[in-house]
Amino acid sequence: MLIGKVIGSVVATRKDEKLEGRKLLVVQVHNHKNEPTEQYVVAADSVQAGPGDLVLYATGSSARQTSMTENRPVDAVVMAIVDSWDLGGENVYEKWNPR
Amino acid sequence: MLIGKVIGSVVATRKDEKLEGRKLLVVQVHNHKNEPTEQYVVAADSVQAGPGDLVLYATGSSARQTSMTENRPVDAVVMAIVDSWDLGGENVYEKWNPR
Amino acid sequence: MLIGKVIGSVVATRKDEKLEGRKLLVVQVHNHKNEPTEQYVVAADSVQAGPGDLVLYATGSSARQTSMTENRPVDAVVMAIVDSWDLGGENVYEKWNPR
Amino acid sequence: MLIGKVIGSVVATRKDEKLEGRKLLVVQVHNHKNEPTEQYVVAADSVQAGPGDLVLYATGSSARQTSMTENRPVDAVVMAIVDSWDLGGENVYEKWNPR
Amino acid sequence: MLIGKVIGSVVATRKDEKLEGRKLLVVQVHNHKNEPTEQYVVAADSVQAGPGDLVLYATGSSARQTSMTENRPVDAVVMAIVDSWDLGGENVYEKWNPR
Repeated sequence: MLIGKVIGSVVATRKDEKLEGRKLLVVQVHNHKNEPTEQYVVAADSVQAGPGDLVLYATGSSARQTSMTENRPVDAVVMAIVDSWDLGGENVYEKWNPR
Repeated sequence: MLIGKVIGSVVATRKDEKLEGRKLLVVQVHNHKNEPTEQYVVAADSVQAGPGDLVLYATGSSARQTSMTENRPVDAVVMAIVDSWDLGGENVYEKWNPR
Repeated sequence: MLIGKVIGSVVATRKDEKLEGRKLLVVQVHNHKNEPTEQYVVAADSVQAGPGDLVLYATGSSARQTSMTENRPVDAVVMAIVDSWDLGGENVYEKWNPR
Repeated sequence: MLIGKVIGSVVATRKDEKLEGRKLLVVQVHNHKNEPTEQYVVAADSVQAGPGDLVLYATGSSARQTSMTENRPVDAVVMAIVDSWDLGGENVYEKWNPR
Repeated sequence: MLIGKVIGSVVATRKDEKLEGRKLLVVQVHNHKNEPTEQYVVAADSVQAGPGDLVLYATGSSARQTSMTENRPVDAVVMAIVDSWDLGGENVYEKWNPR
């Protein structure tokens, strides 16, 4: 998994029928210092994440292991909202005190 | 998933039999600012996308989760046509008013 | 899938038994302008491609969806020979008139 | 697999139910000279690794082949703690004498 | 698949039980000119490869298609030892006359 921030969403009317009702989030990938990178991914949402949330997303076949994504043509899923993140004993992120 | 624009197509007569009747689109990958990158992918089409359409594509085993691609040797599928795309509360793309 | 050119082959006598009789092609990956890149892949052949052929290859579990590769330890397969390739309405490759 | 060092952990309260009780480690990827790179991955823990441990992690569907991760939406798992590592006959890492 | 050279091995005592008895090789990835790159992978061994051998390795779920790796948490397997390698009609590697 990688950590990223929800920065937007995508709306698509014409899509594979298995995507009906699935929210598609734009997630900007963060590096290991919690800084935004130039990478992004569009991921299905399984935890009702919202704009600005720091999240974990999984890719590949693992992205289909939630009840929201099973057997669906999605290769990325937001499956957790990050509460806190520690590195080398230091807290680099705290949901209730974001930097 | 990533977002890209349909910029072309590939025709192949000699191919694995399971590819018969599958349209193969050339999709140029866009970055999170909706700018074209140097990356591309050739993806099977499951939504009748056409040239110039902004689309979402899925890769890997997830690309085989549509009725058009099930059990077939394709590792990328266009599974949605993007209508609109918002980033940080701003609309960066609107199908009926493309930039 | 990506497009590449068959530039060589690999011979291996000591190999997993499931690889017996499978031809292994060296494919140089081309970019979306049909120019060779520094990337390559070794792919099993499912369409009797030969040196100089422009081909499509699929990777990952999708590479095991041909009769030649089913259940075998190969992560890339050449599953089509490109006849023609159009970009933005322009023909960038024609098998019978290669550039 | 790649080798990395456990440099932190991530806590998430709101997450897919299948992630309950799974420890999520932040692993900094090392290169083949055992030097830290800029890459990281968040991986489920199947071997009770701790901060500072040099570990092996597997990605993709292979990350779901441990009893801790089976059928769960995780795409990376720490599945071994490195004791020693030899390159060209030279020992580059020894757990009990780390550099 | 990609081609690489076996440059070392990794020993791990504490590991997922399914890894018992599996030899883990450090493989330095070679480019299409048979030159070493900065990339490496740790791969399970299915062909009793040894230091200095030029090998083929497969990644992802395909790495679990050998009897040595089935259902195990490994995402890379050495599944062939390269005897010879031809590019554009030229021999770039011959096991019995390595460069």
